[in-house]
Amino acid sequence: MNNTPQIPDAAASHPAAQRWMVGSPPPRDRQVRFAEGGLFTFPQLRWAFSNIRQLMPTVNVWRGHGPLRPLPRADREDIDAIEFLPLGGTQPMRWDASLAANYTDGIVVLHRGRIVYERYPGVLQAHGQHIGWSVTKSLVATLAASLAADGLLDTSAPVTQYVPELAVSGWGNATVRQVLDMTTALQFSEEYVNPNAEVWTHARAGGIVPRPAGYDGIDGFCAYLQTVKSNGEHGRGFTYRTINTDVLGWIVRRITGLSLSEALSQRIWSQLGAEQDAYMTLDAEGTEFAGGGFNGALRDMARFGEMMRGEGWFNGRQVVPTAAIDDIRTGGDRAHFASAGYALLPGWSYRNMWWVTHNAHGAFMARGIHGQNVYVDPFAEMVIARFASHPMAASMHTDPTTLPAYHALARYLISAP
Amino acid sequence: MNNTPQIPDAAASHPAAQRWMVGSPPPRDRQVRFAEGGLFTFPQLRWAFSNIRQLMPTVNVWRGHGPLRPLPRADREDIDAIEFLPLGGTQPMRWDASLAANYTDGIVVLHRGRIVYERYPGVLQAHGQHIGWSVTKSLVATLAASLAADGLLDTSAPVTQYVPELAVSGWGNATVRQVLDMTTALQFSEEYVNPNAEVWTHARAGGIVPRPAGYDGIDGFCAYLQTVKSNGEHGRGFTYRTINTDVLGWIVRRITGLSLSEALSQRIWSQLGAEQDAYMTLDAEGTEFAGGGFNGALRDMARFGEMMRGEGWFNGRQVVPTAAIDDIRTGGDRAHFASAGYALLPGWSYRNMWWVTHNAHGAFMARGIHGQNVYVDPFAEMVIARFASHPMAASMHTDPTTLPAYHALARYLISAP
Repeated sequence: MNNTPQIPDAAASHPAAQRWMVGSPPPRDRQVRFAEGGLFTFPQLRWAFSNIRQLMPTVNVWRGHGPLRPLPRADREDIDAIEFLPLGGTQPMRWDASLAANYTDGIVVLHRGRIVYERYPGVLQAHGQHIGWSVTKSLVATLAASLAADGLLDTSAPVTQYVPELAVSGWGNATVRQVLDMTTALQFSEEYVNPNAEVWTHARAGGIVPRPAGYDGIDGFCAYLQTVKSNGEHGRGFTYRTINTDVLGWIVRRITGLSLSEALSQRIWSQLGAEQDAYMTLDAEGTEFAGGGFNGALRDMARFGEMMRGEGWFNGRQVVPTAAIDDIRTGGDRAHFASAGYALLPGWSYRNMWWVTHNAHGAFMARGIHGQNVYVDPFAEMVIARFASHPMAASMHTDPTTLPAYHALARYLISAP
Repeated sequence: MNNTPQIPDAAASHPAAQRWMVGSPPPRDRQVRFAEGGLFTFPQLRWAFSNIRQLMPTVNVWRGHGPLRPLPRADREDIDAIEFLPLGGTQPMRWDASLAANYTDGIVVLHRGRIVYERYPGVLQAHGQHIGWSVTKSLVATLAASLAADGLLDTSAPVTQYVPELAVSGWGNATVRQVLDMTTALQFSEEYVNPNAEVWTHARAGGIVPRPAGYDGIDGFCAYLQTVKSNGEHGRGFTYRTINTDVLGWIVRRITGLSLSEALSQRIWSQLGAEQDAYMTLDAEGTEFAGGGFNGALRDMARFGEMMRGEGWFNGRQVVPTAAIDDIRTGGDRAHFASAGYALLPGWSYRNMWWVTHNAHGAFMARGIHGQNVYVDPFAEMVIARFASHPMAASMHTDPTTLPAYHALARYLISAP
C-alpha cells in the first residue's frame, strides 16, 4: 500500500490546466498568493515561478540601451528523438519526454551560438522572466570574479575587509575565496524539506516566505547574516550554503557603491545585448536576494551561458575577463566536493559558485532548485538554459533525467550532420 | 503665529539630500517601507514614486519586440528663462524655477516631435519608471476608446453587459459612456486629506496602502467595486472618482480576455517603439490598479503624448483610430464639468478620462496626483510629459505653477526662431 499522495504530472499540473490566476478576477481557490505560501507550494509554484514580480517587490536589472544581440536560428526537430539513459534507470528516455519529466517551463539550446531548440511547455513566455533561484549565485559570483580580475576585489582578503559588520559572525575569520567556493564552516542547514532548517529563518528574514502573524524575528538579509555562527574550521570542505552568496552580494555592494541589481546590470546584463530586462527580489531594506532572487528571460540566460562558453567574449566585447572564466572552468578542489556527498555528481567540483563536471567535454553549470540550469559544454560548443517548476526543490530529483540528456544532446550535436 | 510645520522644499527634500535608501543596508531611519506608509508620506514619497516596484508587487507592461522609435533631439537652453505668471500670483516665475516649485522628478518637452527640453531633477533616471497615478486613467480610457473604435466595445451599452457582477452596485444602471466621462453618481469621496474618505477603503482593498493588523475588510478591487452604491442619477454632472477607471479596467479584461497590463501592451505600449517596459501595481488577486497604478519611463510617456498629438498616428502606424482621439480632443460637456467646481480649470471639460482645456491651442492633458502630467498642445505642436513628487496630492497645488508655464512655453515655441 502506498500512502504517498500522487503528485500531478507536468500535464496535470500545468497552470492552464489548473487554471491558476485565470479570470477577472480568478476564483478565490485558483488564486496564487504570496501570503498563503503560493511561491513554495506545488502546483501553484508552476505559475508563481514565471510571475514572481506579481507576488512580491522586485528591482529591475536593466538591459541597458545597447542594441539587442540576435541569436541566429537553426532549429532542429530531430533533437526530440534523442535517447538517453536516466541516471539509475534501466529504460532509455526520449529527449522530448525529459521535458515533462522535469516539469520544464522553458528550454533553449544553443549550438555554435545558434538556437537549435527552444520550447516553452509551461506558462512562461519567451519575453517573460522566470526565477533562476541559485542560478543567481553563478551570476553574482561571475560578477565578483570580474571585479577581482579588474583588481577591485581581493579574493584572498578577509570578508571583514569589505564588510566589517560580519566580524562577530561565522565569516569573521573567513576569506572571500572561501565564500566564493563555499568552504566556509557555518551553522546553517539548507535542507528545504526540514521546516526547522536555518534556510527558512533566512527566508523569513529576507521576506522570501510569508511571516507568521506578529512576527518579531530577524528583519533583513544583512541582519540575519550577522547572526550566523561558525561550526568548525573554514577551508576544509565544500558545503553548499546560500548565505555565502548573500555575503558576496554585500561585498559587491560595498566595492561598487551600487546596489547588486545595478552592478549586475552595469557589468553583465547590459553587456549581453539582452532582449529583456531582468529583475531581482529584495527584502524590506532594499537588499536583493543574492543567493536566489534573479529572474530573467530564457534566451538572455542562454546569452549569459554563451558568454561563459566564449571565455567572457560575447556581443563584440570582453564582458568578463578570460582569466575569470578559465578559473571557473578549471574547477575547484574535487576532494572538498566529494566530502559533500552528492551521489549523482561524482568527480565534480565547485568553483566561484559554478558546478564543474570535470567530464570529457569540460562542462560546467549553474544550478537552481526545482530544475533551473545554465549548462555550458565547451567541447560540444553547446549551451543549454532551462527553467522548470519541478515539485521537489533538490536537484537530485531533476538530475537523473537532465544530466544524461544534456550529455547525449552534446554528443549528438558533435556527430550530427 | 504659524502652526503649519515647514514643508521641505525640492532641494531639502531631494532623496539624495535626505539619503533615503542609501547604504548597504540603509540605516533603519532612512528606509522607505511600504508597511510604514512610505508610499504616501512626504518626503519619503520623493524616493518611492521612482521606485514603486521595490515596495509592492507589480506586473510588466511589455514594450514588445519592435525597434525603439527614436526621439530626435533639438535641445534649447533658452527655455529655462521663459517667464510666466503663476495662477493667482503677482510676480512672474521663470520656467526653471517652476521645476523646483513642483518638486519635479522628470520633465521632457517635445516640439514637432523633437526633444527640446529634458531634465531629471529628482531621483528618477531616464531609463527608470515613475508612477503616473491618474495618468493611468487616460491610458486605460484611450485603450478603451481604441476598442470602441474597432467595434469591440459599445460605449452606449450598460456596464453590466460586460460585468454582470456590478448589477447590484451603483453601476447597475450606468452606461460605459457615463463611466468613461465620470458622470456616474456614486457614494465615493476622493478627498485624500480625509482619512475616512472611501478612497482609502478602496486603497486598502487593493493593497495600495498598508492594512492594519488583523485587517478583515474588503479584499481586492473587484470585491470593493461591487459594494459601491449610487448616490443619485447618473449622467447629470462630472465627479472625479478613481473607481470608474477600475470598472473600465474590468470591462477591458472581459472584452479582451487579457489582463489589463497585457491589453495595454498589445494595443498601445508595444506600438510606440517605447524605450522601456512599463509596469502596473496590482492587488492580491492579480487585478491591476486601473485607476492609478501605471509606471512608465518619462520619454515613453512623451511618445504616448506624441501619438495623441498625431491623432493616433505614431511610429509609422495608426496606433489608435483617429476618431477616438478626435472625440477626446473635442471634449466633454462643459456644463457638467463646471458643476464639479474646479476653480483653476474654468471652461474645461472631461472626456474619456482626459482633461480638455478648450483653450485657443486645443490643449488636453492626463493628470495624476502629486504632479503627474501628459500635456498635449496640438496648435503649438508641443507635448510635455512630467513626473513629480509634490508634497500635496491635489493638482490645485501644482496647477498654479504648471498650467501657465506650459502655455507660456507653447507660445514661446510657436514664436521662437
